[in-house]
Amino acid sequence: MTEPSLIFPADEFRGRVARLQAEMGAQGLDALFLTTAADIFYVTGFLTRFWESPARPWFVIVPQMGAPVAVIPSIGAELMGRCWIRDVRMWDAPFPGDDGVSLLAEVICDLLPKRAQIGVPSGLETHVRMPVADYARVAAAIAPRAFVDGTSALQRVREIKSAAEIAKIRTTCGVADRAFARVPEFARIGAPPDQVFRDFQVALLQEGADWGSYVAGAAGPGGYGDVISPASSVPLAAGDVVMLDTGAVKDGYFCDFDRNYAVGPLAPAAARAQEALWQATERVLAELRPGMRASAVHRMFVDALEQGGVTPGGGRLGHGLGVTLTEWPSFTPHDQTELRAGMVLTLEPGAVTDDGQLIVHEENIVLREGGAELLSARAPQVMQEIGA
Amino acid sequence: MTEPSLIFPADEFRGRVARLQAEMGAQGLDALFLTTAADIFYVTGFLTRFWESPARPWFVIVPQMGAPVAVIPSIGAELMGRCWIRDVRMWDAPFPGDDGVSLLAEVICDLLPKRAQIGVPSGLETHVRMPVADYARVAAAIAPRAFVDGTSALQRVREIKSAAEIAKIRTTCGVADRAFARVPEFARIGAPPDQVFRDFQVALLQEGADWGSYVAGAAGPGGYGDVISPASSVPLAAGDVVMLDTGAVKDGYFCDFDRNYAVGPLAPAAARAQEALWQATERVLAELRPGMRASAVHRMFVDALEQGGVTPGGGRLGHGLGVTLTEWPSFTPHDQTELRAGMVLTLEPGAVTDDGQLIVHEENIVLREGGAELLSARAPQVMQEIGA
Repeated sequence: MTEPSLIFPADEFRGRVARLQAEMGAQGLDALFLTTAADIFYVTGFLTRFWESPARPWFVIVPQMGAPVAVIPSIGAELMGRCWIRDVRMWDAPFPGDDGVSLLAEVICDLLPKRAQIGVPSGLETHVRMPVADYARVAAAIAPRAFVDGTSALQRVREIKSAAEIAKIRTTCGVADRAFARVPEFARIGAPPDQVFRDFQVALLQEGADWGSYVAGAAGPGGYGDVISPASSVPLAAGDVVMLDTGAVKDGYFCDFDRNYAVGPLAPAAARAQEALWQATERVLAELRPGMRASAVHRMFVDALEQGGVTPGGGRLGHGLGVTLTEWPSFTPHDQTELRAGMVLTLEPGAVTDDGQLIVHEENIVLREGGAELLSARAPQVMQEIGA
Repeated sequence: MTEPSLIFPADEFRGRVARLQAEMGAQGLDALFLTTAADIFYVTGFLTRFWESPARPWFVIVPQMGAPVAVIPSIGAELMGRCWIRDVRMWDAPFPGDDGVSLLAEVICDLLPKRAQIGVPSGLETHVRMPVADYARVAAAIAPRAFVDGTSALQRVREIKSAAEIAKIRTTCGVADRAFARVPEFARIGAPPDQVFRDFQVALLQEGADWGSYVAGAAGPGGYGDVISPASSVPLAAGDVVMLDTGAVKDGYFCDFDRNYAVGPLAPAAARAQEALWQATERVLAELRPGMRASAVHRMFVDALEQGGVTPGGGRLGHGLGVTLTEWPSFTPHDQTELRAGMVLTLEPGAVTDDGQLIVHEENIVLREGGAELLSARAPQVMQEIGA
């Protein structure tokens, strides 16, 4: 197990850093300060499930010129040592009283001039993964250097996926496609959804997922009530719609799409919703173009669903996707982000059926100059039926 | 899927809130402000893998008197509606410009007096899971009410597990015990570790895990280099030690322990390390008592390992465990936390072999008044051998 663990060649990461640095330059930032698994993986290739432990913070500084610097707990020495970045400073975490604070402040002060404006992802869909008291301590220690909002500099770069990233996401979508195809093997009338969820996670692993970071779903007569709950143990019954939704992960890249299955013959209201959802997705697949705003895609979905005779439902109707399960932008009425070629997106219309139940339909795409290109295998127009 | 999703009866949560409120009273806090999956699950029972999406923040306020209030994205309405708390305020997230900020500030101002000191987990092993700019906005909007450090109030309560929690962790440990017992079925000479990892995750699911939140491990001749890397594809070879480490999850409760396997006959240096690790764990199992400091346990391990003729290695030598993979305290020389009955802990000594390789040994226990009680099945004294 001493092979390099790089998911990509070093040049892929150098390209990302160059694009971040160009964006920093345009926005007057002297550096970016990164603390989350996704941002640090994006820049360094450092990939571990150890982020599940909240015990230790991890830091990467990307200066506007020059090479990134990692400031990390020494337990990460070997793994970060196999990544492409060369400047790695370490401390013995967790260390009560000074858990990397003075080391981080020292590195920032050495690396950046006194007037440095240091971008921190601080806006929508972000958080700083370190103790908030320590963040304040670092901010005080590095003054007059200042932490400022770096959300846009990071997001405008991360949201455009490279060819290598798109290939990874396509591969992960393929894993989920194959697992979804096997659902009728284990989702039968009488099967409890919690067992179906386990079997589905097994199928994801067997089809090549490194792990199933996210599995949700629901089942109910002619639809379901929400899309984020854990599975119940109430056995599937004829007339149910069962939905499975997954963010499987391979090489650190996610898919995020669902599939619905009719348990026995589908109720008419559910069938109408399915048809409306499928047709709405067809329209957006055909009409989506770079230059549109995220809010316009929401409008397009709402119009198509209403023309299909159903009430839109289920929250945002799609979002970005990549090194986390969900990324910006959001297909809501409020999000004015401009769509650009290279974005990987989910199309996720939801509909409330005449029976008051929710059904959500989801595909993953990459936006090209000419329009949408599917990364998931297109869901069937008629919901697949599973039996006894 | 409309059954209540409560993992515990409401009284379990009421007891937790009462203990938090007593601690707040003792520390002069008027409320706790919680933002992470673990803290919110602890208080409300709200359990979903949807936390994997970074898109939306979630908030719970626990006042020093009275009932908790949840301030959450409306996508959580149904699931939170099945939990025991009754006061749930919602907004349509993600909402650019005001993603719950004004609603949260309004709720805090209505709920708490102007001089309120609101504890936020801000210290070691914490983070605030919301945009840091929004946290500052809320802090400004609620003044003169103040966010202060609430780490200790939360941790002194969460670290003592109830009987119901200990039962859950024991169940999860049992899942991992059964999966570890099956490792020799699929870890054979020539098997690539990444496939072994997949098979192990399948075994965890088949043995009853809801998901495998954490799987790490390593393999190498007579030991390994680190314990957080993803699996490689280099086939297992005779003389390797292969280690699997898991944080499986069932009903929101984690286990966290590993097992080592000898691929063919074990090298003498590795066998000596195994014996020293096993004996050091025996000693700590026998001598651990409430009232000791975490640092004293570290010292006990170091002494036992050195008496066993090996060099201690691998970072902290154990830690807390429960609703996250790792919790405080840490068995390091620096952690002065007093151990108390009801703590669930990992004992995790590591040793560097004479060949310079690392081996880590891990068990899960609950600390009782009379000493340690194992939750994991004790690892065998002699490392289990797997073959061709």
